[in-house]
Amino acid sequence: MRRIRLIIEYDGTCYVGWQTQPNGIAVQQVIEEQLKTVTGSLCPLHASGRTDSGVHAFAQVAHFDTDVRMPADKFAIALNCGLPKDIRIQYSDEAPECFHSRFSAKRKQYRYCLQLGPHSHVFTRNSALHIHTELNVPAMQEAAKLLEGEHDFSAFKSSGSTIDNAVRTIYRSEWIRKGEHLYYEVEGNGFLYNMVRIIVGSMLEIGKDACPPAMIQTALESGKRSDAGTTAPPHGLMLARVMYPGFDTADHVGLPCY
Amino acid sequence: MRRIRLIIEYDGTCYVGWQTQPNGIAVQQVIEEQLKTVTGSLCPLHASGRTDSGVHAFAQVAHFDTDVRMPADKFAIALNCGLPKDIRIQYSDEAPECFHSRFSAKRKQYRYCLQLGPHSHVFTRNSALHIHTELNVPAMQEAAKLLEGEHDFSAFKSSGSTIDNAVRTIYRSEWIRKGEHLYYEVEGNGFLYNMVRIIVGSMLEIGKDACPPAMIQTALESGKRSDAGTTAPPHGLMLARVMYPGFDTADHVGLPCY
Repeated sequence: MRRIRLIIEYDGTCYVGWQTQPNGIAVQQVIEEQLKTVTGSLCPLHASGRTDSGVHAFAQVAHFDTDVRMPADKFAIALNCGLPKDIRIQYSDEAPECFHSRFSAKRKQYRYCLQLGPHSHVFTRNSALHIHTELNVPAMQEAAKLLEGEHDFSAFKSSGSTIDNAVRTIYRSEWIRKGEHLYYEVEGNGFLYNMVRIIVGSMLEIGKDACPPAMIQTALESGKRSDAGTTAPPHGLMLARVMYPGFDTADHVGLPCY
Repeated sequence: MRRIRLIIEYDGTCYVGWQTQPNGIAVQQVIEEQLKTVTGSLCPLHASGRTDSGVHAFAQVAHFDTDVRMPADKFAIALNCGLPKDIRIQYSDEAPECFHSRFSAKRKQYRYCLQLGPHSHVFTRNSALHIHTELNVPAMQEAAKLLEGEHDFSAFKSSGSTIDNAVRTIYRSEWIRKGEHLYYEVEGNGFLYNMVRIIVGSMLEIGKDACPPAMIQTALESGKRSDAGTTAPPHGLMLARVMYPGFDTADHVGLPCY
């Protein structure tokens, strides 16, 4: 058996998320169906992690095992032939047999995109959250910096989450302005369920001067979900990069350019 | 009566084009329906020109006459409330009564977007033509430059076009590389039916080394449609800017940033 590794880009708008669910079509399910056509057998796909309904990926990583003897880079082409245009395999290779998309991952990077201005733009309507009010960006930047380092992120996880250990390390947390877009880029060793969306929702309250930047510190210390802000909508969020020992998606597909 | 001027952005994917047609939904029709809701009466919309089915606009200009006494800039907000998300009014003002969206236009700028690389990208699937083969960009640039100036563009108009005078002036014609994207930007005093798409189709044949750049010169001189290339698909094309004496869309909505 060989372990084939994929870098997958998807527009999450029409899907219930990465993971197969009873209530709609999942990205995983669509690719697994195509894998069955290409390989002739059922190949369970293992991803670096789930993404929520409506969340996008620029570079999700997933692997499967197969004994099909196709050159590894041809899996991307063969799968794309049958995949819908909102899911594309951007890269495929043969991974070492000890590689696991989820358990070997060391760092992930997410990006949340805001589109500023009086009216929303049609071409980013499904990939950016439109904000027509003025934002206090220096206050948001100050809040973003408070998240860097090792913290217990209990206040920033969905109340439905059952994870015990909420300690994660954030290596980089910052807002980047590019014309009408304001991107939040965050890189960490792991993320809790809804964590980035709750962080962004909190910083939006800070940006609207409804709360001070110190709200982040208070929530980190109390660990109470009620001390953090609301959960930002899914469509502004994108999984941008996954890093493993010896394998970085950015080396193969770059970083989001839009 | 007042003349209200709009700058309209639209994703043409789901429409039969700007102009109302019997075979599907047109952008004009959708906005006119919303105008009726906002003003209480039928207001025919006059645009700077038609766009084909599937072609997009970053800055289409259109005007209508009304006696509704709403502040002119509020029409954009009022219309957007009821418009689908793939059509947005980005700006509205009161125009001088002698202004006409079509007859007063002096210059237009179009942009055609190619996405290069082995696999198409999901977020530009409806706004860029994916080209997976290598392109000879210097040859395409040489061809683009041959189009600048005043020429008879008979070879570059759709065979169904009934326009007699095909003389137009092109002020700027060039390819611009931005990462994985290759943009063709063309500015002129007017464009014939399908002209930009036939120009791009011709330059793609030159880029694939199927024809030399001099093909452009030959077609300009012969005026024969058969000497030019095929018509490129509509979804890579976008109306980017319209210029009038004293009014330039770029002053109000900028230029496309994606």
